Amino acid sequence: MSTASSRDPINALVAALDLPPLNDGPLSGACFTVKDNIDIAGHRTSFGSPTWRDTHPAPVHNALCVDQLLAAGARCVGKAVADEFTYSLDGESQFFGTPQNAKAPGRVPGGSSSGSAASVANGLADFSIGTDSGGSVRVPASLCGIWGMRPSLHRISEAGVLPFMPSVSTVGILAASLPLLETVARVLLNSRTAPVAAPRRLLVLGDAVELALPAVQQQLRAALDEINRCTGLVAEPIRFGELIGEDVPLSDCNLKALRDLQTAEFQSTVGNWIEATRPELGATFALAYGNVRRFDRIAALESLARSERFFQQINAALPPGTIICFPTTPTAAPLKGTLDTLEAVTAFYDPTMTLTAFSGVGRLPEISAPLLAAEGCPVGLSFAAGHYQDEALLVALSEILGPQAG
Amino acid sequence: MSTASSRDPINALVAALDLPPLNDGPLSGACFTVKDNIDIAGHRTSFGSPTWRDTHPAPVHNALCVDQLLAAGARCVGKAVADEFTYSLDGESQFFGTPQNAKAPGRVPGGSSSGSAASVANGLADFSIGTDSGGSVRVPASLCGIWGMRPSLHRISEAGVLPFMPSVSTVGILAASLPLLETVARVLLNSRTAPVAAPRRLLVLGDAVELALPAVQQQLRAALDEINRCTGLVAEPIRFGELIGEDVPLSDCNLKALRDLQTAEFQSTVGNWIEATRPELGATFALAYGNVRRFDRIAALESLARSERFFQQINAALPPGTIICFPTTPTAAPLKGTLDTLEAVTAFYDPTMTLTAFSGVGRLPEISAPLLAAEGCPVGLSFAAGHYQDEALLVALSEILGPQAG
Repeated sequence: MSTASSRDPINALVAALDLPPLNDGPLSGACFTVKDNIDIAGHRTSFGSPTWRDTHPAPVHNALCVDQLLAAGARCVGKAVADEFTYSLDGESQFFGTPQNAKAPGRVPGGSSSGSAASVANGLADFSIGTDSGGSVRVPASLCGIWGMRPSLHRISEAGVLPFMPSVSTVGILAASLPLLETVARVLLNSRTAPVAAPRRLLVLGDAVELALPAVQQQLRAALDEINRCTGLVAEPIRFGELIGEDVPLSDCNLKALRDLQTAEFQSTVGNWIEATRPELGATFALAYGNVRRFDRIAALESLARSERFFQQINAALPPGTIICFPTTPTAAPLKGTLDTLEAVTAFYDPTMTLTAFSGVGRLPEISAPLLAAEGCPVGLSFAAGHYQDEALLVALSEILGPQAG
Repeated sequence: MSTASSRDPINALVAALDLPPLNDGPLSGACFTVKDNIDIAGHRTSFGSPTWRDTHPAPVHNALCVDQLLAAGARCVGKAVADEFTYSLDGESQFFGTPQNAKAPGRVPGGSSSGSAASVANGLADFSIGTDSGGSVRVPASLCGIWGMRPSLHRISEAGVLPFMPSVSTVGILAASLPLLETVARVLLNSRTAPVAAPRRLLVLGDAVELALPAVQQQLRAALDEINRCTGLVAEPIRFGELIGEDVPLSDCNLKALRDLQTAEFQSTVGNWIEATRPELGATFALAYGNVRRFDRIAALESLARSERFFQQINAALPPGTIICFPTTPTAAPLKGTLDTLEAVTAFYDPTMTLTAFSGVGRLPEISAPLLAAEGCPVGLSFAAGHYQDEALLVALSEILGPQAG
């Protein structure tokens, strides 16, 4: 079933393409890849599933976000490998092969925007567009050592992007540098040049830090010291419960809110299609889908309400001028082929999603910066701001990380 | 092709159903219908198109919003007629017949949530859920003389709701009374009982009022006088340009922002499917689709940027405590069968969409109240608040309209 052997050894791409820019613009000279759940005209979109690809016709139009990039001067050089139905954070595709993690040999690239991250980390593209519902841009950015941004929920048009989890899915960006990330983001976000609040407060999410490996914690402290030295900003530790004014752990963002909302929405989109079509499923996805199938969406309606409440509480605590940071992932990338037991899967996903669910339920813009490491492999340092404060976050990172952004 | 003759004379329903409530709750005793682009398990969803219905399998799950209502105690009594691909505001379906407008005999019900509005106006249901991308809940509510709410963009989960225009589509509510509308809204919005800003300022959108028939303008003034008498609030006229601090007409919300965004997104969703499938199209939709097909999405990218800018400008002008009102539609419902020339279509759609596009680009919650009339037929009076201020809008309307809400 795998077609990986017929492609490049990096295995980042489903297909190399050459879609020239439509105009000159701020992205002239830059080339990009497109995750294979985002439409490119004339090419079938696989959604990471050969059955989906073969049962859906090729789109006539590019996704709107692809057109925005081509019109801004960028060149599209390929469709990038995606995890099956983009329902994974590890990047090991049984159908399309596992993209290479250039900076962590022998390890997974992270997913589900696995090929997007690998294409940037390996220098095949300057940037890539992916999607992020539970960490699918931020996790591969962290594990491959590149920049990644999940914008505020629904700031970028999802027209031509495969339906997945409408309350949590967003188009995201992976890039080789912060200045390029900012330029791409401003195109997709339709940003105006307008004054934004300067960063006045830098919070550090304590419960998130504690989940990280000691090496990650140590480097995070060093990065914060460097920020303090360069900008005078003093990082203030804060626990999730303190932030939102209610004594609940950070893990509730995942376990009592986002995960159920995701699962219920996945049932309504991909789930309905799987039940009607009975497609060939990869073994890992088939296991995960077993849980989706058994999921009681009525019992989980409480989690919808909890998500809405977390959204309001988190945003009340993040006014313009306040930035919050935490490790993007608690560890470096797992070794390839090791996520094959329930224990290993749980040990990777639970702490990782505790960190990614914070911006997920908060609908926050989050940028993962390739500034940390563990076991000699990359780990991202994330910064988030309030919902719709994407431009303020981009400006804040330029100020905060100017010297480290390289 | 029409199956209308086999159904009730009101023609509001595609199918009568009886889905009992899953629990007791705030909606116990209330019954509702569901627009036929929102999934009900075991029944094919038509999206207003027989070809779509016949080429898509029945969903296994209800849409999440349907489950929310059943779990809150409501009973579902039918699937309601929708305009073809929900791409219309008039409610005349060539495939499913035209639902009856109980309070305006011989006239269209408005669309695309035509059967939803008719089922409530005719007393078949206490409330209905529909969808609104360019006015598809607000227009039929206005023309049928019932209550209608388009909530803030993306406040209600769209899982199991057919993809349409992801940057502008939202699930909406039609109801027989304001108290019921509020109860339904609080269930779907996952509202908490929390204090909200009291209405301190009531603006009246001047350019919107001027587009309305003189009778509508006169009744709007009388309604505002009554509000003033009961609450002391003095309605302040304001032009769109004054509101956003830029000298542009209200019609730009439609002509230079929302309409292009809608058309580009429609190309990417329904458009791709039509091009691949070549379904049977109704004559009216086929005409409209001709424009979609010829549409230059690259040239229209500027409208995406304009939409984003209007969103920011409108919301900067609508802080908590400020409500803005205007006629929902400029006129009463057109006579059935008269929207058959380009001139008639333009004369109905252009001014109507100038009014509905305001909350569309603003992503505002808007409630249409059945308080006005023209030519002896209903016209709605709309109230809108800032993005995500849904609960404040609901509370404000109870205060403002308590005596008139009936």
